[in-house]
Amino acid sequence: MGMGLELNTMIVTKNNESRAQESDNVYILVKEGYRLYPMEIPIEVRKTKGGEIVGTGIIKQLRWEDKMTYLTYELVSLKSTN
Amino acid sequence: MGMGLELNTMIVTKNNESRAQESDNVYILVKEGYRLYPMEIPIEVRKTKGGEIVGTGIIKQLRWEDKMTYLTYELVSLKSTN
Amino acid sequence: MGMGLELNTMIVTKNNESRAQESDNVYILVKEGYRLYPMEIPIEVRKTKGGEIVGTGIIKQLRWEDKMTYLTYELVSLKSTN
Amino acid sequence: MGMGLELNTMIVTKNNESRAQESDNVYILVKEGYRLYPMEIPIEVRKTKGGEIVGTGIIKQLRWEDKMTYLTYELVSLKSTN
Repeated sequence: MGMGLELNTMIVTKNNESRAQESDNVYILVKEGYRLYPMEIPIEVRKTKGGEIVGTGIIKQLRWEDKMTYLTYELVSLKSTN
Repeated sequence: MGMGLELNTMIVTKNNESRAQESDNVYILVKEGYRLYPMEIPIEVRKTKGGEIVGTGIIKQLRWEDKMTYLTYELVSLKSTN
Repeated sequence: MGMGLELNTMIVTKNNESRAQESDNVYILVKEGYRLYPMEIPIEVRKTKGGEIVGTGIIKQLRWEDKMTYLTYELVSLKSTN
Repeated sequence: MGMGLELNTMIVTKNNESRAQESDNVYILVKEGYRLYPMEIPIEVRKTKGGEIVGTGIIKQLRWEDKMTYLTYELVSLKSTN
């Protein structure tokens, strides 16, 4: 028997991220399906797959439940766009 | 850059499981390191690696944080030992 | 961007395995998609998902290419059926 | 029972890559341990972890055997260094 999952190498927000209360730079993002991301490693944060890089994120918590993935990540650097 | 993880095919409790409040058959187990288990699939539950089979469990929630893995699983069948 | 894969905890042959030349107990099995199996750990070998257990296998080689998974496993114990 | 593996999001060559015969842009790289990389997805190729980006690679084949990982990847774009 098998369990489907998806290996991800970047965080794609699609503007669905929400700020966690505790900190200005910590975000929560919910994705469909069971997704595997590298923990505690700087990875790119993008708005869309092929879209602009928002910055660099570090995933602090990953949770799988009911075929959903709940990510908590810290945005450690931000691409300035001025 | 890489992230170490461990692929697991059974739940080894080492008697560290604790009952979740909501249900008699739902347990919480904390393991060191980031561990990958199949979700929502019946797998063996054992007390020790090579030890007796306690029963069959189904993992309902998996959480990674601070190099720890937090499992919530339902014990769906129990080996009788009389 | 993501890559789909499937986490597997047993070998399901569906009678598609073929004997490798080098040994009587070493088999090759090709499966669709990228599938993750535990290496060098005894796992169940079944003909079908819910079907009879053929025996215990140990995966010696796993190869991913063109959305296919190529397994080489050794059948280390066989359920007798007399 | 568990199997250790490492989740990787980029190819770090440490100058150990070798050219495959069939093509000028296809390389073979051997790494210690079982390592999981995304297949068929553009990822960064670097000489060292924190070092310069050599270009972008796409992994065409991944093989696990004897606690080693054998990668075949195509270098699809190259950072010019003039």
